Amino acid sequence: MSQVSVHEASVLRKPLPEALVEQLRSHFGDRFSTAQAVREHHGRDESPFPEMLPDAVVFATSTDDVVRVVKACDAFEVPLIPYGAGSSLEGHTLALHGGISLDVSGMNRILSLNTEDLTVTVEPGMTRKQLNEQLRDTGLFFPIDPGADASLGGMASTRASGTNAVRYGTMRENVLSLEVVTAQGKVVRTARRARKSSAGYDLTRIFVGSEGTLGVITQVTVRLYPQPEAISAAVCQFPTVHDAVACVIQTIQLGVPVARVELMDAAAVKACNLYSKLDLRETPLLLFEFHGTEAGVKEQAQTVQEIARDHNGLDFEWADRPEDRTRLWTARHNAYFAGLQLKPGCRASTTDVCVPISRLADCLDQTTALLESAPFPTTIVGHVGDGNFHVLMLLDPDDAAQWEASETINERIVSIALDADGTCTGEHGIGLHKLGFMREEHGHDALELMWALKRAYDPKNILNPGKVLPPDLP
Amino acid sequence: MSQVSVHEASVLRKPLPEALVEQLRSHFGDRFSTAQAVREHHGRDESPFPEMLPDAVVFATSTDDVVRVVKACDAFEVPLIPYGAGSSLEGHTLALHGGISLDVSGMNRILSLNTEDLTVTVEPGMTRKQLNEQLRDTGLFFPIDPGADASLGGMASTRASGTNAVRYGTMRENVLSLEVVTAQGKVVRTARRARKSSAGYDLTRIFVGSEGTLGVITQVTVRLYPQPEAISAAVCQFPTVHDAVACVIQTIQLGVPVARVELMDAAAVKACNLYSKLDLRETPLLLFEFHGTEAGVKEQAQTVQEIARDHNGLDFEWADRPEDRTRLWTARHNAYFAGLQLKPGCRASTTDVCVPISRLADCLDQTTALLESAPFPTTIVGHVGDGNFHVLMLLDPDDAAQWEASETINERIVSIALDADGTCTGEHGIGLHKLGFMREEHGHDALELMWALKRAYDPKNILNPGKVLPPDLP
Repeated sequence: MSQVSVHEASVLRKPLPEALVEQLRSHFGDRFSTAQAVREHHGRDESPFPEMLPDAVVFATSTDDVVRVVKACDAFEVPLIPYGAGSSLEGHTLALHGGISLDVSGMNRILSLNTEDLTVTVEPGMTRKQLNEQLRDTGLFFPIDPGADASLGGMASTRASGTNAVRYGTMRENVLSLEVVTAQGKVVRTARRARKSSAGYDLTRIFVGSEGTLGVITQVTVRLYPQPEAISAAVCQFPTVHDAVACVIQTIQLGVPVARVELMDAAAVKACNLYSKLDLRETPLLLFEFHGTEAGVKEQAQTVQEIARDHNGLDFEWADRPEDRTRLWTARHNAYFAGLQLKPGCRASTTDVCVPISRLADCLDQTTALLESAPFPTTIVGHVGDGNFHVLMLLDPDDAAQWEASETINERIVSIALDADGTCTGEHGIGLHKLGFMREEHGHDALELMWALKRAYDPKNILNPGKVLPPDLP
Repeated sequence: MSQVSVHEASVLRKPLPEALVEQLRSHFGDRFSTAQAVREHHGRDESPFPEMLPDAVVFATSTDDVVRVVKACDAFEVPLIPYGAGSSLEGHTLALHGGISLDVSGMNRILSLNTEDLTVTVEPGMTRKQLNEQLRDTGLFFPIDPGADASLGGMASTRASGTNAVRYGTMRENVLSLEVVTAQGKVVRTARRARKSSAGYDLTRIFVGSEGTLGVITQVTVRLYPQPEAISAAVCQFPTVHDAVACVIQTIQLGVPVARVELMDAAAVKACNLYSKLDLRETPLLLFEFHGTEAGVKEQAQTVQEIARDHNGLDFEWADRPEDRTRLWTARHNAYFAGLQLKPGCRASTTDVCVPISRLADCLDQTTALLESAPFPTTIVGHVGDGNFHVLMLLDPDDAAQWEASETINERIVSIALDADGTCTGEHGIGLHKLGFMREEHGHDALELMWALKRAYDPKNILNPGKVLPPDLP
C-alpha cells in the first residue's frame, strides 16, 4: 500500500505496561481485547492512511467504564483514543502512538427524550440512523446527516454536518450539552438543558470539534425538530458548475429557507446514474429539498425554479412523491460509493474545503481546472448552500504516484480555499490528514491558544495524542 | 445607597504605577484620562451595584491601541476592563480591582460588508442600532436585539440575544469570527469567514461569552439576514400566564418559525399602557412577530391564532401596518423604562433565568407565587420561545431591606430554574451579580475546567479580574 505516510519521527510507541493490561483485563474481562482482528478493526478508518493499531481495545458500556479506563491511562500515561462508528475520513481514530482504543459503540441508548422541549440525550455510540429510527413515532427528527451512519459522539467530536446544515446548522449549533470525562477522570456536564445560556465559558463548544483530544464524550444532548408537514424535492440541471452555484448564491441571498441544496458535477451524476440506475442528464446538477407547510414548500420551490431559470437552468424536475424523493436522495447519499464504483478496487481520498459563498463559484472553477490534469478519476459533490464541497479522488491503492498526486491536489484546493478566506475542512475535521494546514489556516498565535487549551485540559497528552494540533508547536 | 455589596476581602486595590501612567499618558494624550467624571462614567452600569471606579480610562481607536494598553497592563500586572456601551445589567464593566477601563466605543466602523455572503465585520464599539442604520439600504439586517443599544463587542462578550433569538439564534450562533487581543498582547483571528468549519478548537465560541476575561475583542464578524419580504405582528391576551405559555410551547413544538414571541404579565402590560399610551387589556399577553413571504406570514399567524384559541386566548389582534407594529414593539422594547416609571426614582434589579420550555409554565407559576409577597412592584417580561424570562424588581434605592429582599427573590427564582435544569442567566451574563450561582449551576469540576482555561489564557489575571468565575476556586 502506498498510502499517505506519517512522519515517523513523531511516532513514539511503547508497549502497554503489564500492570495496566492486568488491571483492565481483570476488570473488563471479555470487554478488554488485544486480539489482532479487534486491534485491526480499530486501527483503520475511511482515511487514506495505513493501519495504525492500538495495543488494546476496551468496550465500554457506561460512563463508569470510561472513567475507569481514563484514570488507568492517566496513571500509566498511555494514549487513549475514543472510538465510535469508525467512519472518520481523516484518521481521527488511528492509534498513531498506540495505546488503548476505547470503543463506545455499545453505549447506544437514548437516556432521555423530551418531546416538549425538542431535545434528546443519548449515549455517544448511538448512530444518527439508530436515533432517527427510535424517534420515528414521535413526530420529531434529528436532522444532521453527514452521509455515513456516524455515532453522535463522533459527530460531536468532529463538529459534523452534512446535507441539511444549510437549514438546520451543524453539530456546533445543535449540541445543547455534553457529559464529558476529563483527562483526569472527572465527569463533567458542560451545560444545562436550557436553549440558551450566558453562564460562563462555553464548555460545550470547547468539546464539540475537539476530536477526542480534550475529553471523552459520554452523553450528547441534541436539539430535535418537528418533522415537516410537507417535504418536496427538485432536481435542476445546469450547463456549468458556475451557473449552478450562481443559482445557489441567489437562493441563499433571498433568504429562501431551503432544507438542502446539493451540487453534483457531471462526473458525479454519471457515477450515480451507473450506481443507482438513474437516467439523469450528465451535466452539473443541483438537488433541492424543501421543508415546510404544503403551501410554504410550494412557494419555496417556485421561487427557486425562477432563480434557476435566470441562471440557465436546463430543466427543473419535481419529486413530490416520497418514493421519487427517496430515489434521488439515496442516489446523492450513495455518491461516495457510486464514485468508488467508477474504478473497481480503488480507494478514495476526499477533500472538504468550505469557503464564503461569494467565493464558491470561483473556487469551484479553479478546482475544476486543477482536476483536468489529475491522473485519476474525480467527482465533485457539495453542500453548496454552506460553501462546502468535496472532491472525491479515486486512487489505485498500489500506485504511490497517484497518492502523491492526490495529496498535491488536496493541498492546492486548500490553498485556493484559504485564499478565499475559507477553511481546509468544513465538516470532516483535522484528524491526522489536515494537520499540515492548521498553521496556514489559523496562524501561529491562534495555534498557541489551541495548544494552551490542550495543555490545560490534558497536560499529559494522553487523549488522542497527535491529532488536531500539528506537533511542531510546544 | 444600599445596593448589593461586594465581598470586601476579594477587593484588592493598588494605585496605578506611575510609570504606567506616564507611558499611557505620553502615548495617548487626551485619550488617556484620570478625570473623576470620566472614571465615574466608566465605573457604573445598569446593575444594582454601587460605583467601582477604574483608576484611569483609555479611549482606543484601533487594534494597535488595544495591543499597546494590554501589553502595558501585562507588564505592570494591572487590571484591564474592556468597555463598550456600558449597558451591562450585571456589573461586567465595574472596576472591582481598579485598573484601566479600555473604552472601545470610538472603534465603531464597519470594516467590511459582504452582502453576497450575508456577513459584516465591524469594530467592537459599533452598536447594533448603528449597524442596522448603516445596513438599511442593503436589504440586509442584523437581528440580535437585546433591548439596549449595546455594542457588538459587548454583545459577543456576554453571549447576548433578545427578542428574536427564537428564530435567529443568539450571539453564539451568529458570530462567525472574532479578532481578539490576548492577555499577552497578541492579535488573533479566531476563525475564517466560512459559514462552518471543523478545523480545530472553536476559538470563536471560547471568546463569545467570556465577558472580557480571556481577551479583548477588537473585531466582530457576524451573520446578516435578508430583510423579510413580509412582517406582521399580532397580540393576544390570555387569562393567565400559564395559558399564554402553553400556547407558546405548542407553537414551538409545531415548528412554526415565529420570529419573536414575547410574554408580558398584567403588571408589565399596565406599565406599558401608562408609559406608551396604549390601551391594552391588562391581562397577560403574548406579542408575536412573523417574518417570511406574504403568504408564509399569513399562514404562520393563522396557525398561531388557532393554537391561541385552544389555550383560552381572549382576542387576537393583528398589526399588519408598520406603524401599528412599531407601536407595539416599541412598547415592548420600552417595557424596562415603563417599569421604572411605575415607581418614580426607583432603581431596577432584573432576573434572567432560562429553562427548558416544558418547564416554563411551572417556573413562571412558582415565580408569580413568590412575587406576591415582594415588598416592591414587579413586572415580568419574557422571551418565552426560548424559555427565558425577566422579573423587573423596582426598588427604592435608599431602602436596604428592599435590596436584600430582591436578592433573596432572585436567588429563589434561580433555584426554581436550576431545579428545572435551567440556567441562572439566559442572556445577561454573570458579571459580578451571578457569581454566587456558578457553582450550583455547573458543579465544581466544570468550574475547574473554566478556571483552567482562564489560567491558561490569562495567567496573571489581568483581564476583567473577578468576573465570571467565583473567586473561591484557585
